[in-house]
Amino acid sequence: MNVNCIVFNDFETLDLFGPVEVFGIIDEWEINYFSFDGGIIENKDNIKIITQSIDEINNFDILLIPGGFGTRKFVKDSEFITKLKETAERSLWCLTVCTGSALLAQTGLLDNREATSNKAAFEWVKSINEKVKWNDKARWVVDGKYYTSSGVSAGIDMSLGFIRDRFGEETAVNTAKIIEYDWFD
Amino acid sequence: MNVNCIVFNDFETLDLFGPVEVFGIIDEWEINYFSFDGGIIENKDNIKIITQSIDEINNFDILLIPGGFGTRKFVKDSEFITKLKETAERSLWCLTVCTGSALLAQTGLLDNREATSNKAAFEWVKSINEKVKWNDKARWVVDGKYYTSSGVSAGIDMSLGFIRDRFGEETAVNTAKIIEYDWFD
Repeated sequence: MNVNCIVFNDFETLDLFGPVEVFGIIDEWEINYFSFDGGIIENKDNIKIITQSIDEINNFDILLIPGGFGTRKFVKDSEFITKLKETAERSLWCLTVCTGSALLAQTGLLDNREATSNKAAFEWVKSINEKVKWNDKARWVVDGKYYTSSGVSAGIDMSLGFIRDRFGEETAVNTAKIIEYDWFD
Repeated sequence: MNVNCIVFNDFETLDLFGPVEVFGIIDEWEINYFSFDGGIIENKDNIKIITQSIDEINNFDILLIPGGFGTRKFVKDSEFITKLKETAERSLWCLTVCTGSALLAQTGLLDNREATSNKAAFEWVKSINEKVKWNDKARWVVDGKYYTSSGVSAGIDMSLGFIRDRFGEETAVNTAKIIEYDWFD
């Protein structure tokens, strides 16, 4: 399976790299990084990572959308949202962390589905699309192929939950053990 | 304060980006990434990040050394270890995550000091330098300016501990809250 991470300027560091650490433990999974145009993507922590263009995704298995302040800009970028919608529709699974759910909500694909987001940015995320059944309590929510999580480290918990749903409890617990992570399930 | 992260091929993703997420919350701190030669550094999770050369470090405040499989190679690289020793000696604080402590132990700077490392790789790390007082139980250890932690997510706990030691309990607890992280203190 391929894990396709969508990256944009001002993504939140751990929203991306928490799930990457978890999914990287699964030997058969390959992780790649895509942005709208490809090239170097930066964030507030001075991380500069190299990405491919979103048009270069070949295997639409797992889509991962992090949050971060960059979502405030990209939620209004209709070209980006159109491309994100196409990619999410074709993907087998679609996971968001933090305000990444605002980007996914903007595509309309979460309409009438249950979803969650960072509790500190919840009113803003809700305002993006009121047709989503926003859950303001959950650490993470699964609805069909869509997994949405609350802020930062909740993305790690959701990723372990996603591993459990694909491989069973034992693999998830072992994965948490390898990264010495106290899984808040 | 400057946080200078030492990066090498096959670093462990969250060993680096867990502490980066925590330290990124502190507005006054600036994070930068350095490798021996500078340029693009890669790891098993297909992350390609852009680094400066270690010779470009100007402010020797906080040094962060992650672990990962790359440490097995770099621990034997005497040029790298010499440069790391110089950098660590000049730094105000020196933090390691996981097998990053093997690199620091190899410099001799941990001799007769208490330190820890990833429990899954403990025998190997111990074998690098027996003069270190290795603590095989602690999640993280502080000895003078040296903070060493166990595997992956323990680096996040240590980073929150480091924030507490610099700014007090309230700032540390608030930082954990912002990243929705259950601080295992």
